[in-house]
Amino acid sequence: MPEVPAAPAKIVTACIVVIGNEILSGRTKDANISFLATELNKLGVRVMECRVIPDIEATIVATVNEVRAKFDYVFTTGGIGPTHDDITADSIAKAFGVGISEHPEAVARMSRHYGDPALFTPARRRMARIPHGATLVDNPISVAPGFQMGNVFTFAGIPTIAQSMFESMKHRLVGGDPVLSRTVRTNLPEGIIAEALGALQKRYDDIDIGSYPGFRAGKVSVSLVLRGTNDARLAAAATELIQTIHQMGGEAEELVQ
Amino acid sequence: MPEVPAAPAKIVTACIVVIGNEILSGRTKDANISFLATELNKLGVRVMECRVIPDIEATIVATVNEVRAKFDYVFTTGGIGPTHDDITADSIAKAFGVGISEHPEAVARMSRHYGDPALFTPARRRMARIPHGATLVDNPISVAPGFQMGNVFTFAGIPTIAQSMFESMKHRLVGGDPVLSRTVRTNLPEGIIAEALGALQKRYDDIDIGSYPGFRAGKVSVSLVLRGTNDARLAAAATELIQTIHQMGGEAEELVQ
Repeated sequence: MPEVPAAPAKIVTACIVVIGNEILSGRTKDANISFLATELNKLGVRVMECRVIPDIEATIVATVNEVRAKFDYVFTTGGIGPTHDDITADSIAKAFGVGISEHPEAVARMSRHYGDPALFTPARRRMARIPHGATLVDNPISVAPGFQMGNVFTFAGIPTIAQSMFESMKHRLVGGDPVLSRTVRTNLPEGIIAEALGALQKRYDDIDIGSYPGFRAGKVSVSLVLRGTNDARLAAAATELIQTIHQMGGEAEELVQ
Repeated sequence: MPEVPAAPAKIVTACIVVIGNEILSGRTKDANISFLATELNKLGVRVMECRVIPDIEATIVATVNEVRAKFDYVFTTGGIGPTHDDITADSIAKAFGVGISEHPEAVARMSRHYGDPALFTPARRRMARIPHGATLVDNPISVAPGFQMGNVFTFAGIPTIAQSMFESMKHRLVGGDPVLSRTVRTNLPEGIIAEALGALQKRYDDIDIGSYPGFRAGKVSVSLVLRGTNDARLAAAATELIQTIHQMGGEAEELVQ
C-alpha cells in the first residue's frame, strides 16, 4: 500500500540577537539563547540563527535589518537599560527609519513604580523612550518595558527580565508545526554507528537526525536525537534505529521525554 | 601641561562561529563562546561577533566567507565528528573553493590511536578528511584533528576537545594590544549613577565603560567595568569614578582582578 505523503510542514523561523560587549569579552555567559530557543521551539518557532554583537549602533542597525528580512521573528536581548551604553532602542528606531521618544504609557507605568519623582531620574526616563510605531512588551519584574517593532521583539538582557518579557508576549507569536523529538541513547560510539545512522537519515529525509556524544558514569554514551513534525515517522525511525543498534550488539533505549 | 596622546591601540579582531542544530534547538547550552572569548581576550584578540548557525552547508559557506573577510581571525566549533550531520570540513573546503581528502598525517595519527584496523571504521576515517592547503590543529584528547585554513580555525564542538585544540594552536595567533579592565562595584542603582557615568565616558573616550546590574545578598549591586589598552588611563578613570560615587553618597570599591 503506498504511503500517503504527509502535508508539508508549516515552518516559522526566528533569529536571536544578543547585544552586549560583556558577552563578547567573556565576562558574562549568555543565558538567553538557550532559554528562548527552548521556549520558541515549544511554540513551533524554529531558531535558525543567533548572533552576539557589540554595543555599536552601526552593527546593531545592519544586523537587525539583515535578519528581520530573513526570518519570521527576531528577538533581541540587551542594551535597554538607563546607562550611556544602552543604545538598542535608538538603534532599532534607526533600523526601521522611525523616530523615538517617550511613550506615554511607559512613562505612566514607570512613574507609578518609582513613586517619588526624584527617583524617576532622567536616566530612568530614557528607558521610556520607544521607537515610534512600536507596541510595548510588559516587564513584570522591573517595569521598564521592552517593545515590538514589526517582527522584531526587544527584551532586556538580564535573564530573569528577558524571560518575564517573553512570557508576557508569547501569545502574540504565530508558530508553525511544532518540532517534536525522540531520543535514543546507546553505548556504541559514533564511529561505529555512523554508517547505519547515515543510511537511516537517507531513508527518513523528513527527519533531522543528530548525534551527540558524551559520557555517562565514565563510559561512552551517544544521544541520537530524531526531530521532525510527524510523530508517527519519528516513532518508526526510533524503532528501526533501536533494532539496528541491537543487531550490531549494542545497547539502545529510548528516553522518556 | 598638555597630555601626551597615547599611540593608537593595535586592534586584532575575531569572530566565533558555533555550528550545530543542538544549540539552536535549546537542547545543548553552548560553552565554547565564553571560553574562547575569555582566552582570546587575554591574547589581545577581540571577539567582535559570534554566530550560532545550523548544520546546513549553504549557511556555513556563506557565513564563513562573510566573516573571514570581515575579521582577522575566525574560530568555528562543531560538526567535525564521524556522523552524517558532521559537514563542517566539507563546507570550509567549499567556502575556500578547494578540494578535500584524507590528510596522511591525520590518517597516521588516528590509525595509531585506534590500533586495530577494524576500529578505524570508514566513519572515523572521514574525520581525517582535511581541506587542501589546511594545516592540522592537534587534538590531545581524541586525536582526530582540527585544522587551520587561512585565518579560519576549525575545532570540535565538545567543549573539552575545543579547549584542548585551542591550547594546542594559540601560539599561532598574533594578538594586538591586550584589553585590560578594572571593575568598580557600587550599591547605587544604574538609574542614579547613569548621568555621571555618561559624563565620565565622554571624558574618557579611549575607554569602554560598561554597567552591569545585579544583586548581592539581596541588595542592588552594579559592576562598572572599565576596559581599554592603557592601564594608567583606566586607573585614573576608576579613581574619578569612585570619588564621584562617594560624593553622591554611595559605596564604591575597586575589585581586585
